[in-house]
Amino acid sequence: MRTQVGIVGAGPAGLMLSHLLHRHGIDSVVLESRSRDHVEHRVRAGVLEQGSVDLLCRTGLGERLLREGLRHEGIELRFAGESHRVPMTELTGRAITVYGQQEVVKDLIAARLAAGGTILFEADVVRLDGLDSSSPVVRYRRDGREEELRCDFVAGCDGFHGVSRGAVPEGVLTSYERAYPFAWLGVLAAAAPAVQELVYAHHDRGFALYSMRSPEISRLYLQVAPDEDLAAWPDARIWAELRARLETVPGWSLTEGPVLEKSLTPMRSFVVEPMQWERLFLAGDAVHIVPPTGAKGMNLALADVALLGDAFAAWYGHGRTDLLAGYSTTALRRVWRAQHFSWWMTSMLHRLAHDDPYEAKLQTATLRYAATSRAYATSLAENYVGCPRSDHLGPAPAEAQPPTWPPRDTPCRPGAGGSDATTTQRRSTYS
Amino acid sequence: MRTQVGIVGAGPAGLMLSHLLHRHGIDSVVLESRSRDHVEHRVRAGVLEQGSVDLLCRTGLGERLLREGLRHEGIELRFAGESHRVPMTELTGRAITVYGQQEVVKDLIAARLAAGGTILFEADVVRLDGLDSSSPVVRYRRDGREEELRCDFVAGCDGFHGVSRGAVPEGVLTSYERAYPFAWLGVLAAAAPAVQELVYAHHDRGFALYSMRSPEISRLYLQVAPDEDLAAWPDARIWAELRARLETVPGWSLTEGPVLEKSLTPMRSFVVEPMQWERLFLAGDAVHIVPPTGAKGMNLALADVALLGDAFAAWYGHGRTDLLAGYSTTALRRVWRAQHFSWWMTSMLHRLAHDDPYEAKLQTATLRYAATSRAYATSLAENYVGCPRSDHLGPAPAEAQPPTWPPRDTPCRPGAGGSDATTTQRRSTYS
Repeated sequence: MRTQVGIVGAGPAGLMLSHLLHRHGIDSVVLESRSRDHVEHRVRAGVLEQGSVDLLCRTGLGERLLREGLRHEGIELRFAGESHRVPMTELTGRAITVYGQQEVVKDLIAARLAAGGTILFEADVVRLDGLDSSSPVVRYRRDGREEELRCDFVAGCDGFHGVSRGAVPEGVLTSYERAYPFAWLGVLAAAAPAVQELVYAHHDRGFALYSMRSPEISRLYLQVAPDEDLAAWPDARIWAELRARLETVPGWSLTEGPVLEKSLTPMRSFVVEPMQWERLFLAGDAVHIVPPTGAKGMNLALADVALLGDAFAAWYGHGRTDLLAGYSTTALRRVWRAQHFSWWMTSMLHRLAHDDPYEAKLQTATLRYAATSRAYATSLAENYVGCPRSDHLGPAPAEAQPPTWPPRDTPCRPGAGGSDATTTQRRSTYS
Repeated sequence: MRTQVGIVGAGPAGLMLSHLLHRHGIDSVVLESRSRDHVEHRVRAGVLEQGSVDLLCRTGLGERLLREGLRHEGIELRFAGESHRVPMTELTGRAITVYGQQEVVKDLIAARLAAGGTILFEADVVRLDGLDSSSPVVRYRRDGREEELRCDFVAGCDGFHGVSRGAVPEGVLTSYERAYPFAWLGVLAAAAPAVQELVYAHHDRGFALYSMRSPEISRLYLQVAPDEDLAAWPDARIWAELRARLETVPGWSLTEGPVLEKSLTPMRSFVVEPMQWERLFLAGDAVHIVPPTGAKGMNLALADVALLGDAFAAWYGHGRTDLLAGYSTTALRRVWRAQHFSWWMTSMLHRLAHDDPYEAKLQTATLRYAATSRAYATSLAENYVGCPRSDHLGPAPAEAQPPTWPPRDTPCRPGAGGSDATTTQRRSTYS
């Protein structure tokens, strides 16, 4: 089989890239080791930045997102028995949209298949060959047979555990990492959310996050030990712990319901540089991981492939090499902004060490500052809703050319004028 | 001897408190272990927040400050071969003034003596007695004799190594601390500053700070090991190291000159809570230390005694106990804001660990963000120029009453319309 861009991995990055390439008339094939059912149902991130929403909408993927996504204009910080709203939209003009990663994946798969695109599920990529030639080969195994996909370029979008990154010769990549001494126990519950906006709670017992996936489904997280045993967390213990960490504001109580799913998410910061070697372009979790506190993982993946889509379009359409050559440098500016923000949110909100009372006081001082300084809250908010392209990301040599997107659609606003759940707002505490 | 408020320590905190009390018609005596010459010439901090300048000016101490102080409206961040100005005044409406701590001390001593105030130099405080009675006694030794000072209250303004804090019974105070694995080698040089504003430089070799005390005197700092031997730093090595860390911007070079003084400053974060026990009120370095990166030490000391001055005035003038009772809580809000800011600046700018490449990248990302985000730069600037009272400091129960200052003077602007050195400004990089 032959294509122009071989894409390894059918997560948000790989599927979105295939979708963007198709819109530019560029052929691609997506190879995914898992089944369609698996990738469409694995519960992952659920917060889309304004820029991600805009990207999905202007490339024809906004219909269900507009209908089902929950537009949020603020988040709540809860600590020391107090509650403070960070009014993101008031501070930045932008918003986030709650819409599960698996919903994005479903929409992308549907769009690719409707357009006649090729996604090979249960295709195990075994090796990438000839990456330094003009005709790389992706070797994969499917239905017991070894197959090959010949292409002009390979996009490695196969996540942290994927094979793509490993195809780069030793000594080319530098990796940067940090581990955190805790994990998140995530719970999906059939319970109407007791909150209208996400609640980030700092507590002596550990961090808790109250979020939601729909008006009927709550998504809750607890900071736990990195080696926590899920079996030690029956539902009753989970709800008791959530109550202890979240019911710190007078008159407020949690809504309980059947637990649909439990999972453990490790917390890790990880970056590989550069994000390209010869004809292999790496994107998303394959080259960078953030702790989930800042909700940046899926958004970074989409931002990566938005750049890649432009870069391939410039190459195939106009023979331009500058965007492909500048991809890694340009993408890494956003990656490090998100790394810093995710580390910042993580450090501010989690219980970090049991034996450092100075650090605990520092956290409270930081949270109080975020709750009372308009400037500091704005910096939190502008990261949370997502920095626009080339804003706060430093010099942008590779973006000197105008983007090749057809600017025919305007940014859309999912849920605008929608349900009560997203429009009732408390006043902020900023003067 | 008998007075109303016995003050231990003739640094900025003790002297300013005595000055403020005098203006309220309250009698005080200041006891200082060192000589007048010593305290008037020890080189310490040199940056006054807007609020500190306003306090000095409106209490009649602005004359020389207005004439000799250098008003600065921005600072420079230098890293990765780039230079970025944080335009503090543009972002916050406030400014800092460069004026050495020993100059503040000289002005305060002169004012106290001119007003007939009592400052006993070379008076070694030995013990504080009866702090939990209505008539505490400060026992001290002077000219070989043991003396006592009877008073209504004692103000412990005798610094980190003073005796006051130790007079509180065990178990009452909680201390919070953090040590940093580096120190500052400080240099006072007879060299016209090559810069118009302070330069905070982040470099692989370590942090460097270029500041000044006057148009003829430069004040320079280098990050060194905490156990550094000053003898290992002859002048030539100091200048070479300063050049390596600071001459990173094309066309820019250091101005050298004779080194007048060298010193080593340890870096420490330290807070004691509460700042009061019975009739003992602690202020300044006696209860909190910050690393010098944020230039907050002297400003915190002045802010503490500004509160104490009001509180004693409310007590002696109107029998009000609320401000004295709320002193510690109110002061600690500012203390922790400054602790967080000083830790933030310190962490962002110093070389922290030789073996953590992730941390180094995080620092560059943070600096780049400060250089490009107006919101983040504003949060840096509003801390640097000093948060106004009750702003960003959380709920303020003890400040519900109007302040008792005579509001007869307006805030003054030292150096406004002054020398070229403070008025030429580069444009900022914020849109």
